[in-house]
Amino acid sequence: MTPSLTFNVLAQDGSARTGSITTPCGVVRTPAFMPVGTGATVKAMFPEDVAAAGADILLANTYHLMLRPGAERIAKLGGLHRFMHWEKPILTDSGGYQVMSLAKLRRLDERGVTFQSHIDGSSVMLSPERAIEVQCLLGADIQMVLDECTPYPATREEAKSSLDLSLRWAERSKTAFFARAKPGQGLFGIVQGSVYADLRELSARALMDIGFDGYAIGGLAVGEGQAAMLEMVEVTAAILPPECPRYLMGVGTPEDLLLSIARGIDMFDCVMPTRSGRHCQAFTWTGKLNLRNARYADDPTPLDPESACPAAQYERAYLHHLVKSGEALGSMLLSYANVQFYQELMARARDAIAQGCFASFAEDVRRRYAAANPNDDD
Amino acid sequence: MTPSLTFNVLAQDGSARTGSITTPCGVVRTPAFMPVGTGATVKAMFPEDVAAAGADILLANTYHLMLRPGAERIAKLGGLHRFMHWEKPILTDSGGYQVMSLAKLRRLDERGVTFQSHIDGSSVMLSPERAIEVQCLLGADIQMVLDECTPYPATREEAKSSLDLSLRWAERSKTAFFARAKPGQGLFGIVQGSVYADLRELSARALMDIGFDGYAIGGLAVGEGQAAMLEMVEVTAAILPPECPRYLMGVGTPEDLLLSIARGIDMFDCVMPTRSGRHCQAFTWTGKLNLRNARYADDPTPLDPESACPAAQYERAYLHHLVKSGEALGSMLLSYANVQFYQELMARARDAIAQGCFASFAEDVRRRYAAANPNDDD
Repeated sequence: MTPSLTFNVLAQDGSARTGSITTPCGVVRTPAFMPVGTGATVKAMFPEDVAAAGADILLANTYHLMLRPGAERIAKLGGLHRFMHWEKPILTDSGGYQVMSLAKLRRLDERGVTFQSHIDGSSVMLSPERAIEVQCLLGADIQMVLDECTPYPATREEAKSSLDLSLRWAERSKTAFFARAKPGQGLFGIVQGSVYADLRELSARALMDIGFDGYAIGGLAVGEGQAAMLEMVEVTAAILPPECPRYLMGVGTPEDLLLSIARGIDMFDCVMPTRSGRHCQAFTWTGKLNLRNARYADDPTPLDPESACPAAQYERAYLHHLVKSGEALGSMLLSYANVQFYQELMARARDAIAQGCFASFAEDVRRRYAAANPNDDD
Repeated sequence: MTPSLTFNVLAQDGSARTGSITTPCGVVRTPAFMPVGTGATVKAMFPEDVAAAGADILLANTYHLMLRPGAERIAKLGGLHRFMHWEKPILTDSGGYQVMSLAKLRRLDERGVTFQSHIDGSSVMLSPERAIEVQCLLGADIQMVLDECTPYPATREEAKSSLDLSLRWAERSKTAFFARAKPGQGLFGIVQGSVYADLRELSARALMDIGFDGYAIGGLAVGEGQAAMLEMVEVTAAILPPECPRYLMGVGTPEDLLLSIARGIDMFDCVMPTRSGRHCQAFTWTGKLNLRNARYADDPTPLDPESACPAAQYERAYLHHLVKSGEALGSMLLSYANVQFYQELMARARDAIAQGCFASFAEDVRRRYAAANPNDDD
């Protein structure tokens, strides 16, 4: 039996498309934004509110979960869905990115990467095979190959050598996945190549030769700037097979999402809505607000009158009071409202694509964000 | 028109009684436990979950709200109920207790107390009249007279002199209340007298001569120990008029509540369920648990299988993981579960009183708590 998920494109508008991915735990409508549930929780949110906000799928971090509470423990407790009270699809990353950004005393060789846990200092080994084993223990519906997320900046030679290692790991990841995964689960390859268009093309074609259920674009939003990012997205998405979902990792602002959807991207993840929520910032249909700003102290307007989110019905004056007082409810309400804004943005994008008016929709959102008070955008 | 709330005793079992208080914003079933919403939020809880947990009424702190965001501001925004999205009854304290425990550079005289705000250092005056003005601006359904919470320990002379000042302030509070309050709102006097039974009696009788809608017992749970506390509760409750609600301020553990209900107390407030929730402790029908304890790392049991609270359905292993990881969701779930446990405790107490079996119910709960693992009770 071949594990695989299915992807259907329902409508296309320019390079933007809307469709659905069918996984063992349900359907993901695309374009999709995945809230990040790093440590088996989308920070400061009840899981039922993540679902109520409209999220079809969330992302969990292999690195964090293998260190705490441990993948074997989660498997024994019935898998990640059950552990964190989330019945819908879950995508797990491979852990590679966090090893490079969080772990100490790394040693990287052909076999994999050995590192010291940032939690208890123990020595941990992550290989392509172990990354898949962990993701299968968690029971992830969509799994990612282990790759080396090429640091930025990188010379052409560094990027090429890193990419070659990632390709060998991708092949080993696929072998491990087919030996372990359950029917319906899927595995995505990850395109690397830094900001070099020819390397991106080389990486994409080599991954397509191996063959994956979907293709991610990694190593972007790491400091290269929006223009370079969008160029790499455009070059890469144009090569990737149209019958597979395309996932831009770690992106981004509402504008980044719309510009990337216009270039053919189907999936995103980012900590931005939740992290911003914990830092007093709100994404709304009238732009970005910083609730610490004194102008909101007496403002009886709901956070976002255009949003259907229960949290967005709270008045700005109250939210200002909560964040000034350091109350947990401030983070809870802003995280909820932001996660739902991102979901509403994706829902409207899907509708616009289906109706063939995506470009004007994206321009309308861009104008709303440009008109928002610049003092609030900090 | 005379502002007043109404209290009906429905059943009595020994000195314990069950009834209902009717306020402008709805009915409060007694015995009632009021979750504490210090800064216009019950910490780490959505207001709709506080209501779903079964709370008929919550307590808000005059001291905190007059300093931030300000009583006049809340009044302009439509009052405290609207500000904090809580439509049910609210009781406010007078601010006196917090002035003594939180404010710096206090100066207390016949007129009132002047202090330095712990938030911005400004000089603030709290008199009996201002305490009532603030509570009326907030729109509290049940208001408290300004008193001096006698520190513990206090000599008989100190306690008497403090009590006398509080009585003069109680009279001024009542005058101010009748000039300002809206129909249906109520004012409670506060019995002081430290651990001196004759002073408690003197205080209670003097307050009854002034006449209030209800009577609180203050200045307890401040270090005098459970036996002394219960003795003062028993002495005082026996004197207070049976047709008025009796409120024991700042208490306490589940055992304290049941022992006080047995002595005729109708209302309580305490930060214990929410503060414990933020410190990894859970009140359950099988006793108190400390979720940081390693024994829960692999425990698939729901937090409290006997509770109807959605938060109590989460497995102990997951809660252990959340609190070990410092995740906000841990505090959110434990606060919710604890607040609901306290409400379920009150609901069962009301039923037991109505059925005439309160003593055996209280003994059953005491035994459950005594049987819980002592290591978890820290």
